Amino acid sequence: MPGNLDNNTASDSFLTKLKAESAPEWAAYLGHDFVRRLADGSLPEVCFRHYLTQDYLFLIHFSRAYALAVYKADDLADMRQAAETLHALLDTEMALHLRTCARWGLSEKDMAAIPEADANLAYTRFVLDSGMAGDLLDLLVALAPCVLGYGEIGKHLLSDPAIPLEANPYRDWIEAYGGPEYQEVAEAAAAQIERVARRRLGGEPDEAPRWASLSRTFQTATRLEIGFWDMGLTPTKS
Amino acid sequence: MPGNLDNNTASDSFLTKLKAESAPEWAAYLGHDFVRRLADGSLPEVCFRHYLTQDYLFLIHFSRAYALAVYKADDLADMRQAAETLHALLDTEMALHLRTCARWGLSEKDMAAIPEADANLAYTRFVLDSGMAGDLLDLLVALAPCVLGYGEIGKHLLSDPAIPLEANPYRDWIEAYGGPEYQEVAEAAAAQIERVARRRLGGEPDEAPRWASLSRTFQTATRLEIGFWDMGLTPTKS
Amino acid sequence: MPGNLDNNTASDSFLTKLKAESAPEWAAYLGHDFVRRLADGSLPEVCFRHYLTQDYLFLIHFSRAYALAVYKADDLADMRQAAETLHALLDTEMALHLRTCARWGLSEKDMAAIPEADANLAYTRFVLDSGMAGDLLDLLVALAPCVLGYGEIGKHLLSDPAIPLEANPYRDWIEAYGGPEYQEVAEAAAAQIERVARRRLGGEPDEAPRWASLSRTFQTATRLEIGFWDMGLTPTKS
Amino acid sequence: MPGNLDNNTASDSFLTKLKAESAPEWAAYLGHDFVRRLADGSLPEVCFRHYLTQDYLFLIHFSRAYALAVYKADDLADMRQAAETLHALLDTEMALHLRTCARWGLSEKDMAAIPEADANLAYTRFVLDSGMAGDLLDLLVALAPCVLGYGEIGKHLLSDPAIPLEANPYRDWIEAYGGPEYQEVAEAAAAQIERVARRRLGGEPDEAPRWASLSRTFQTATRLEIGFWDMGLTPTKS
Repeated sequence: MPGNLDNNTASDSFLTKLKAESAPEWAAYLGHDFVRRLADGSLPEVCFRHYLTQDYLFLIHFSRAYALAVYKADDLADMRQAAETLHALLDTEMALHLRTCARWGLSEKDMAAIPEADANLAYTRFVLDSGMAGDLLDLLVALAPCVLGYGEIGKHLLSDPAIPLEANPYRDWIEAYGGPEYQEVAEAAAAQIERVARRRLGGEPDEAPRWASLSRTFQTATRLEIGFWDMGLTPTKS
Repeated sequence: MPGNLDNNTASDSFLTKLKAESAPEWAAYLGHDFVRRLADGSLPEVCFRHYLTQDYLFLIHFSRAYALAVYKADDLADMRQAAETLHALLDTEMALHLRTCARWGLSEKDMAAIPEADANLAYTRFVLDSGMAGDLLDLLVALAPCVLGYGEIGKHLLSDPAIPLEANPYRDWIEAYGGPEYQEVAEAAAAQIERVARRRLGGEPDEAPRWASLSRTFQTATRLEIGFWDMGLTPTKS
Repeated sequence: MPGNLDNNTASDSFLTKLKAESAPEWAAYLGHDFVRRLADGSLPEVCFRHYLTQDYLFLIHFSRAYALAVYKADDLADMRQAAETLHALLDTEMALHLRTCARWGLSEKDMAAIPEADANLAYTRFVLDSGMAGDLLDLLVALAPCVLGYGEIGKHLLSDPAIPLEANPYRDWIEAYGGPEYQEVAEAAAAQIERVARRRLGGEPDEAPRWASLSRTFQTATRLEIGFWDMGLTPTKS
Repeated sequence: MPGNLDNNTASDSFLTKLKAESAPEWAAYLGHDFVRRLADGSLPEVCFRHYLTQDYLFLIHFSRAYALAVYKADDLADMRQAAETLHALLDTEMALHLRTCARWGLSEKDMAAIPEADANLAYTRFVLDSGMAGDLLDLLVALAPCVLGYGEIGKHLLSDPAIPLEANPYRDWIEAYGGPEYQEVAEAAAAQIERVARRRLGGEPDEAPRWASLSRTFQTATRLEIGFWDMGLTPTKS
């Protein structure tokens, strides 16, 4: 899907503008200590485990948010795109988490019983309420930092020759998010956001009256991603 | 609220453009046989009674829709405006219906037990779903034909010297919708729609990419108002 | 899935009780003239075509309702079940409609542009609003008459030796709804409803305080199915 | 409203059972250090100010949640009760906060521009999403710890002779929540919860199949109240 990719990375795209307007938060999210320690393998397993079990609960609510995007879509193409992302989350990404957690002796039932950390509650419910209160675009913008950011992080960690994978205990994670399957999910999700933004805001998104509000939603969601990494680094606190 | 009024009636307002784009439906709604027979008093009471009991059920769901507008508002001014319209519906307009129906021996409990006609279901649930799936503007546009249309009909019937009120059995209805209290509710609701449209679409609403979709919502809701009058004229069908 | 089937047809199941309480409406829906004329092949093509194009639009909103069920589910099993039904609607059932309509020269775009009949609006939006206002069980009960009824109708038409398929112009439709793929979708949906009812009402659903309200929802949805067949027989009215 | 009060405090009421099942969390919320320092006047003003400005933002979303309760109500009595609580929040409680904040030179616009603390986001959006995903009872249970807890705290602080009000800088706050107006709001809200619980669960709520899920919602909301007091004590963190 090179066309989507072009859209996605075009200097004047909607998502590029959103990231530019929240540049400090975006940089803090992508370059977070949690990510750097995943990359060099120095992240304590207890942190990764805390993160991954919380991320499993996170994905349940992100799946609910993509289901909401099917409900909110105004044409069949958008319904199908959101249903495919839902399918990728429910059947691929969550299965990966379950496999990893099974190695720690955690069953699906164990995972579902872990209490949600406050950082998790804050992020997922903010996305769901933003999407329910607003329209499809408000919802997709609230979802964007997760799907785009993980795509960018995965791609970077996998392609950077300075990051050796061999002995890295987090190699599976890096290969999953940097690999072609997730990259395609992220690109298709990004292409949908661009399409919906054009259809709702027109060709100059940052001159549209809704720009300030959408940009604030993106910034808040990015801030909540940072809070999620912070939570990963402090496994003793819920 | 002369400022709002000006906005409301300005030749280039959002609502004026919506009505112009659905001109045939708007004319068929405002000039419906049901309205003409209300005006000249020739409407059979059985029709009016069927209409009014259904309208009571309608107002329950319209109140739910204004509550949804409070939920969907993105600032306090819009929350308060929607809460005031909710209050006017729940505490003034529905009370008027109850008083009229009490004269026919119908209690509030009797009214709530009457099955909703299909035309009623179609209209109210279309509004609620349009509003839930879309944003505040989608919701307000779906609500607009009712609040605006009743305002225009009431004003016209009350002010037209060719329509004598004295012996008209529907005088109460005409005075309620043509009177200052309802006119103010309608004007405040219209002013809110203009304000939200400006904030979400900018100054040229019919050039905004969402125009076609919003115009279609307004047209469908107006068509469903016509269906509601039709239902009033056929009291034996549900 | 014999276990589900047993549940589904057990004399004391939740769905059996719902159907029993709306027995006249259920019989009128399953034995509607539209169905009898489908079975004997005497249904005018103009009626079938009107029905099928409206049913295509119906399925868009039914897909939205199953997406809502994913959002509303309270465990992963229910999320996955609703996501599978969504997938079956979006990717199998709608594709069948598109193939049939393609034979009449109608493209997907043509179909999406056909105005929704009022009977269609009333039914789909009633389901969506019942589900949004209530919980997962309210939603599934509003959806039940469609998925169960089509399953029962299809099974009956396909298995009744008095109904010859060879020359029947509606053979595809009968084989689709009577065939194993749709029967499995219907059984899995029914099994989910039984499971959710047990989890929310306990073992004696018709003694639970919510019974009257749920039964009314089922009855209204069945009445709206009858209205949908009526619409199919009157292709000149919208 | 002595009848409601009786219900409310009866040893076997729904709310009494919910509080009993979350006894440690309930005690930690009502006896939080923030509350004790409000009572003895030793709370630093910077903490109170941080708390009160966040609480103002909190009330915006709590008002949205009560509007949602109007949308979700299944009879007029519940619609009116939720609309009255909405009115009390929007027009009385928020006005009190604005008056207090005006003394610090903060305008309504200033207040609305303060970023929401994560503890605030987590709590309010959890309530809104619980309510949207579930039914009216799920929503009211998620709202209960706030309205009930503030009622109990206010009553206790105002009536305890060991708590002198004269020199207490937080006297206004104590008198507002302990005073008859707020106590009546809290009692009416509690009476509604009892009524809705009886109508949806029957007479033995803790034997109903939904009990575990409702109890978990109440516990999570109480935990998030504790997080809100914690936030009040740490004004430098967002």
